[in-house]
Amino acid sequence: MASSAAIVFSELPFRFSPIRSHRITRYAPTPTSAVSLRRRGAPSRRGLAVKSALIEPDGGKLTNLVVEEPKRRAMKREAETVPVRIRLNRVDLEWVHVLSEGWASPLRGFMRQSEFLQTLHFNSIRLEDGSVVNMSVPIVLAIDDDLKSRIGDSDRVTLVDSFGNPVAILSDIEIYKHPKEERIARTWGTTAPGLPYAEEAITKSGNWLIGGDLQVLEPIKYNDGLDRFRLSPSQLREEFTRRDADAVFAFQLRNPVHNGHALLMTDTRRRLLEMGYKNPVLLLNPLGGFTKADDVPLSWRMRQHEKVLEDGVLDPETTVVSIFPSPMLYAGPTEVQWHAKARINAGANFYIVGRDPAGMGHPIEKRDLYDADHGKKVLSMAPGLERLNILPFKVAAYDTTQGKMAFFDPARAQDFLFISGTKMRGLAKKKENPPDGFMCPSGWKVLVDYYDSVNAESGNGRVSEAVVSA
Amino acid sequence: MASSAAIVFSELPFRFSPIRSHRITRYAPTPTSAVSLRRRGAPSRRGLAVKSALIEPDGGKLTNLVVEEPKRRAMKREAETVPVRIRLNRVDLEWVHVLSEGWASPLRGFMRQSEFLQTLHFNSIRLEDGSVVNMSVPIVLAIDDDLKSRIGDSDRVTLVDSFGNPVAILSDIEIYKHPKEERIARTWGTTAPGLPYAEEAITKSGNWLIGGDLQVLEPIKYNDGLDRFRLSPSQLREEFTRRDADAVFAFQLRNPVHNGHALLMTDTRRRLLEMGYKNPVLLLNPLGGFTKADDVPLSWRMRQHEKVLEDGVLDPETTVVSIFPSPMLYAGPTEVQWHAKARINAGANFYIVGRDPAGMGHPIEKRDLYDADHGKKVLSMAPGLERLNILPFKVAAYDTTQGKMAFFDPARAQDFLFISGTKMRGLAKKKENPPDGFMCPSGWKVLVDYYDSVNAESGNGRVSEAVVSA
Repeated sequence: MASSAAIVFSELPFRFSPIRSHRITRYAPTPTSAVSLRRRGAPSRRGLAVKSALIEPDGGKLTNLVVEEPKRRAMKREAETVPVRIRLNRVDLEWVHVLSEGWASPLRGFMRQSEFLQTLHFNSIRLEDGSVVNMSVPIVLAIDDDLKSRIGDSDRVTLVDSFGNPVAILSDIEIYKHPKEERIARTWGTTAPGLPYAEEAITKSGNWLIGGDLQVLEPIKYNDGLDRFRLSPSQLREEFTRRDADAVFAFQLRNPVHNGHALLMTDTRRRLLEMGYKNPVLLLNPLGGFTKADDVPLSWRMRQHEKVLEDGVLDPETTVVSIFPSPMLYAGPTEVQWHAKARINAGANFYIVGRDPAGMGHPIEKRDLYDADHGKKVLSMAPGLERLNILPFKVAAYDTTQGKMAFFDPARAQDFLFISGTKMRGLAKKKENPPDGFMCPSGWKVLVDYYDSVNAESGNGRVSEAVVSA
Repeated sequence: MASSAAIVFSELPFRFSPIRSHRITRYAPTPTSAVSLRRRGAPSRRGLAVKSALIEPDGGKLTNLVVEEPKRRAMKREAETVPVRIRLNRVDLEWVHVLSEGWASPLRGFMRQSEFLQTLHFNSIRLEDGSVVNMSVPIVLAIDDDLKSRIGDSDRVTLVDSFGNPVAILSDIEIYKHPKEERIARTWGTTAPGLPYAEEAITKSGNWLIGGDLQVLEPIKYNDGLDRFRLSPSQLREEFTRRDADAVFAFQLRNPVHNGHALLMTDTRRRLLEMGYKNPVLLLNPLGGFTKADDVPLSWRMRQHEKVLEDGVLDPETTVVSIFPSPMLYAGPTEVQWHAKARINAGANFYIVGRDPAGMGHPIEKRDLYDADHGKKVLSMAPGLERLNILPFKVAAYDTTQGKMAFFDPARAQDFLFISGTKMRGLAKKKENPPDGFMCPSGWKVLVDYYDSVNAESGNGRVSEAVVSA
């Protein structure tokens, strides 16, 4: 998400002239979604098979890699007998979660080399029928030399959590070299030291990657009190269908929601109604996986989001708040494609994109890592995302004449106050208040409480570098 | 090209199983090639319009950006009146050459930002009709801050050569930021200092890129005695048609031809005949643009290639030797796509790919920059190259039992001698002979003469770092 404080819908959906126009595709009933919902074992409610006319998942069918109940016990016993075990770290487990629920459909496990190379070079994967799906970030599992030699000629391994409990079986495995430098360069467009995801999950990881098909033994749970907010793409599709949504617009974020965001989301619904949709539903889909140390942790963000809904800033009737389990890469134009693609699989056919999506400061130079406009441009041209309607918005600001967040009007620029993410965090840390109307007071209090708790912990008034999101 | 000394056709064309099979596409007559040949002003020979059934150029029509004769004089006068001039360096001029003749069809000039971003992220460009063409390397023109401010709101500039003579007009221009680090990282998969092309053409270049439509005032000539070998894609298509070729197989190289190469090329023709083609023609297409300091310069390589043909190692009846005017990037899997795509535009529907195509050593680590197999894998999966038949080959060697280059037989590995490019250059520098049958003696003599001339120049027996190909 953009680090800017407020956001305004641009007049028209972004058009990338020489390539394609962004048609507003009206839903046509497709049997696939209904089938995939039923495959998931969800009960058929209120004529689901007829009404589930959401956008088709990538590859035509939502992937579900969680072993179905009747076979689960046998599969768990089998997992115990597989000789080689791979211990998953936190990010690995988050990817197992992502894969298991079909956010990365049609992927059926960690990438084999062909998928990895296509992701790195083309940000997309060609399927057997010749069609292309978007896939911009490598979803891979690294192992070290020792583990590789222990696996030898085995064709499968058991993946275990940090306590040694089996999580999944990875079958029909393929082991190939882990070209770390190339992976980082092609994903981030830089190899500068200090990229949070690279430092967490790549640089220190093994020299080999292991791909294969996943069979996940149970739905992934974190037991952190937030699991009830972790709806799978299948559950989200069911929810949108239950609400009779005829358009779903997704909003990805990793920051607290302020009234500029709210204005944008409300305005998007208004515009979709104007376009003729009867019931557009918002998927407010905060990222729940790994984030960098100075981002506000998930648990605090969720508290803040709850307050925003309680306060009526967003309408609970037309909003679904749910956690997106992916780790955050901060890979800008490359990552925003992943954020959008995953939401197609969750049923969204509109995607809101801001300035510098998934961007961050350059790790060692005094500048943003990405051009602020590249994200939405790349997204609009990305192979495999042609079906998605991209809704870009401009940065906007606090209108001092109205005392609220409003569309930025360049004709009276002097009336507007820009409150950056850094400034917002600074105010909350110092327990100061932002201007009235920037954020609902109960939501702001959550932020102040968070920095209070951090100050108490670190004892020096600075955010500890060790703080990462839940 | 692979640095290995000998090359053997693998048993079967490389197949990338989950993606697509490499169909042998038989030629179907298409009016397009004939049209493009006539547009170029070539005389219609021997029923050209009927027989010119070569593979269609990317985008359906071969781009020709050289101003036609009747308008040339007026355009030259116009070029003199354009207020802002951009002086092209050597690599810039090579790209003007490449663009002017349609090697990069359907590009009509230096890339604007949309084409640049698609190239970096997707190695392909989507056309207005929704179809996709391959485009893996940025073809861009850099300018500095000064020049940008001098251009101001102008909509066109004149491009001039190193003597200040107008070469082309660039119209409908677009100026955008030159993200050098990101460009290097996404093109090479590394940002290590010492990449020859980056040092020559990117790192020191301006902070802005200027895209637009090119009108080239005259065919690009170098007056180095080799212009007669520089056939444009249009001329090559005409030549293949004249020879009644029903298959064209391209061989890209930047090294002297030895008998291993020759064996491969001869064997490819044999195999194509077996497949049912009546007259497969080889396009031996040495790269003629910028190369790194320790590669053998173009003029010497062309002498060597001439000897190989004179010596009958390759059959002149079924071989067209012509210079490919592109600079060399040494960007491995990214660049091999460019090498292949350009040859489609020149009429080739078969492309021979070796180990580590367009590869080199890592600039600062003791390893190859790319995995030797990635090139052919990436090529086989590349968007926009589905129409091209990829013909991979394995490394092979000098068979000491036969005293000639032969298919490597792992069952009697001890009989084979591998002669690397480095070893070959070392022998030639020391005026030693390779084993009989490695290269025709007259071709070898050219190499020895080349290193002799270098030794004479530098006076110390070492190749001067300043030596680059013509």
